[in-house]
Amino acid sequence: MDTIKYNLPEKEMPTRWYNIQADLPEPLAPYLHPATKKPLGPADLAPLFAMELIKQEVSQERYIDIPEEVQKIYRQFRPSPLYRARRLEAALDTPAHIYYKFEDVSPAGSHKPNSAIPQAYYNKKEGIKRLTTETGAGQWGSSLALACSLFDIELKVYMVKVSYQQKPYRRMMMETWGAKCVASPSMDTNSGRAALAADPNNMGSLGLAISEAVEDAAPREDSHYALGSVLNHVLMHQTVIGQECLKQMEMAGEYPDMVIACVGGGSNFGGIALPFLHENLTKGKKTRIIAVEPSSCPSLTKGLYAYDYGDVAGMAPIAKMFTLGSNFMPPPVHAGGLRYHGMSPIVSHLKKLGLIEARAVLQLPTFEAGITFARSEGFISAPETNHAIRAAIDEAIKCRETGEKKVILFNHSGHGHFDMSAYDAYLSGKLTDYEYPAEKVKEALSCLPQT
Amino acid sequence: MDTIKYNLPEKEMPTRWYNIQADLPEPLAPYLHPATKKPLGPADLAPLFAMELIKQEVSQERYIDIPEEVQKIYRQFRPSPLYRARRLEAALDTPAHIYYKFEDVSPAGSHKPNSAIPQAYYNKKEGIKRLTTETGAGQWGSSLALACSLFDIELKVYMVKVSYQQKPYRRMMMETWGAKCVASPSMDTNSGRAALAADPNNMGSLGLAISEAVEDAAPREDSHYALGSVLNHVLMHQTVIGQECLKQMEMAGEYPDMVIACVGGGSNFGGIALPFLHENLTKGKKTRIIAVEPSSCPSLTKGLYAYDYGDVAGMAPIAKMFTLGSNFMPPPVHAGGLRYHGMSPIVSHLKKLGLIEARAVLQLPTFEAGITFARSEGFISAPETNHAIRAAIDEAIKCRETGEKKVILFNHSGHGHFDMSAYDAYLSGKLTDYEYPAEKVKEALSCLPQT
Repeated sequence: MDTIKYNLPEKEMPTRWYNIQADLPEPLAPYLHPATKKPLGPADLAPLFAMELIKQEVSQERYIDIPEEVQKIYRQFRPSPLYRARRLEAALDTPAHIYYKFEDVSPAGSHKPNSAIPQAYYNKKEGIKRLTTETGAGQWGSSLALACSLFDIELKVYMVKVSYQQKPYRRMMMETWGAKCVASPSMDTNSGRAALAADPNNMGSLGLAISEAVEDAAPREDSHYALGSVLNHVLMHQTVIGQECLKQMEMAGEYPDMVIACVGGGSNFGGIALPFLHENLTKGKKTRIIAVEPSSCPSLTKGLYAYDYGDVAGMAPIAKMFTLGSNFMPPPVHAGGLRYHGMSPIVSHLKKLGLIEARAVLQLPTFEAGITFARSEGFISAPETNHAIRAAIDEAIKCRETGEKKVILFNHSGHGHFDMSAYDAYLSGKLTDYEYPAEKVKEALSCLPQT
Repeated sequence: MDTIKYNLPEKEMPTRWYNIQADLPEPLAPYLHPATKKPLGPADLAPLFAMELIKQEVSQERYIDIPEEVQKIYRQFRPSPLYRARRLEAALDTPAHIYYKFEDVSPAGSHKPNSAIPQAYYNKKEGIKRLTTETGAGQWGSSLALACSLFDIELKVYMVKVSYQQKPYRRMMMETWGAKCVASPSMDTNSGRAALAADPNNMGSLGLAISEAVEDAAPREDSHYALGSVLNHVLMHQTVIGQECLKQMEMAGEYPDMVIACVGGGSNFGGIALPFLHENLTKGKKTRIIAVEPSSCPSLTKGLYAYDYGDVAGMAPIAKMFTLGSNFMPPPVHAGGLRYHGMSPIVSHLKKLGLIEARAVLQLPTFEAGITFARSEGFISAPETNHAIRAAIDEAIKCRETGEKKVILFNHSGHGHFDMSAYDAYLSGKLTDYEYPAEKVKEALSCLPQT
């Protein structure tokens, strides 16, 4: 019998998160205060985040225990399955073995609840009654809406307008869980009003939506802000993915030559990659770790490595990262979760140190890959996930050409059930491609903070 | 540790389907030919169905082996999890133990692939190149599109127009898997053209869509027709659900006092109920088996038990069943999968023999139940599934009142990711209720066949 699904027993679910800061050859650059440009202290972050999350952000401990309350909710959908993509392999006629970790099984349909649940938990524990956040494609906003409904916390989501219009079902999903969702730029904040005054047709960006959510939460005693990617603690929460994969690959009797994931802010990539990087850094493994980003928003492959603002209005912390500039307005491609101007400091740092690879792919080939996947493996994938599938297929085709029997593992970060209009546009030939021009990156310099 | 998820090991997945015909105290009434009104023979069905499926339809064998090719595909998403709804129990403050079988995990998001896959398999094996079918909410059409893409069969789906308009994402999903989907009534068949000539605003019905699909397939050598519910072989394919539940309830150390499922044509209900009926019929168990239908289409609770046409045009076999009359045009409620004028002959027969119970529920309370479920268990359910949730919650509330610690099991037949506009309508107060008037049932007599 050819095994296609590796279910890890519930008792094997990770009980701690892995913190790569303990294993970095060089430490991360500190965050800077957006006003003073001096390194941030915990007190600076306290108006926005629960203290436990602030501690996790800078912790140097290798492992941090997952609270039992969080594990209990994780256990509804974790461990998630690992699949061997035998039908895809057959369709590609490749000698490669392709595996995918399947994060679609959470109620929100992606990996995002892995961090939304602990974030809601810690905020609840510290007496917070209300959270604000931004969302691109809606994966994060809906995951936090789910988590807030479980912990009885009020939630307001600023959703990038282009996605708000493209993906109305995501808004309805958030509302079903009891959250309030508005299109960003909105008239509810100074940042939003300023953006709309400058351009009434502003379709929004993650950087701008972050400004709105931060501005909303910061002055309110009862409110905190939550971020679904980029930050160290978010990537750490996601490491349950890679930890499970390590055990599941062992069940399969193989070890990956390559680990592939898409990157926007870096959370699903970090989730699957960091535990394998731990093996590379501490156990002499040589797995290639490949981050795949859209050519329309190529922060890792074309961006500058510099201190930059995390948001448009310059209210979020300044971080050392690969960036296209905080004023970057991405074209309205369908992988809304990959349209952030910057990149997680951890992922940026790893790229700078040469510990991971990065590549950019165009939108049309990602949908072609998504269709190939749907018609062989059955599952319909998020446009973000299609970036990882594209790279995995490309590597499998290389193996067909060279005859190499490589083991490829990629993160299937979420389903595309709320992105069908993108598939419709692709299938009816209405989708176009856009490559961010290299020369434009230079303009990004103009808005970098002076540090 | 409070267990919430019961994962059956892969090797425990059922390898045969259960055929309740072997255990019925009285045999089913035979199908009649729509033209001659005489009992049907296999040759009459051959233009529409694969011979293996025709044999299964009338088989008296208790168990029929699941082909290895079908098992291999089942294993991608089966065994499906059984959940203990601890958070819902807490929200309801009930002493009842509520369990739900979770069929959302198939690539199409419902139980429907359990029959779509073997139907595609047997047709492929017999050399069929093309299938036609009808779909209501789109769950069946998309599941057959998935199955046809795996077996490389062409597919044309006639989708009830009201759903085609309400659920555009379902059409896009079918197209992603390579199927062709048209709104029914269509201009592609005589039945469709006649309906549109009589009323250009005809919003369609399952009975009419069946007529179109049958008319399309019958004369073509390369084509067969596939039905997603009602027929004996379809319910039999679904019995993997209940067989798994029996083992999973054993893992949980409990046995259900009640088994609940929604009914339209009867396939998800049959899937979970028939293996428990086998225990009732042969091992002295006394589980109450409850079928839940919409008040807007109450075939089991208000229909006539009579021989009736399976479709509007009178081309499909005549079956002995509870029916509202083949001309029944249901109001456009959102549970599109429950709007069939008739009921599976097996389910009808069981109802007539008093072996199962039936109840009808209004649309608004089903959405209220769906929201309660989403905000406690996290999962967003199909409008059809919300009918089962409503009944389960009602029973759990009764337990709260009486203090009884009953064990309730219901079938969570599918997710609502493509039905968010229905949730939106509910949450914004735009959804209305409709109860089919008892006196109208009498009119149904006028179009019954003279047998």
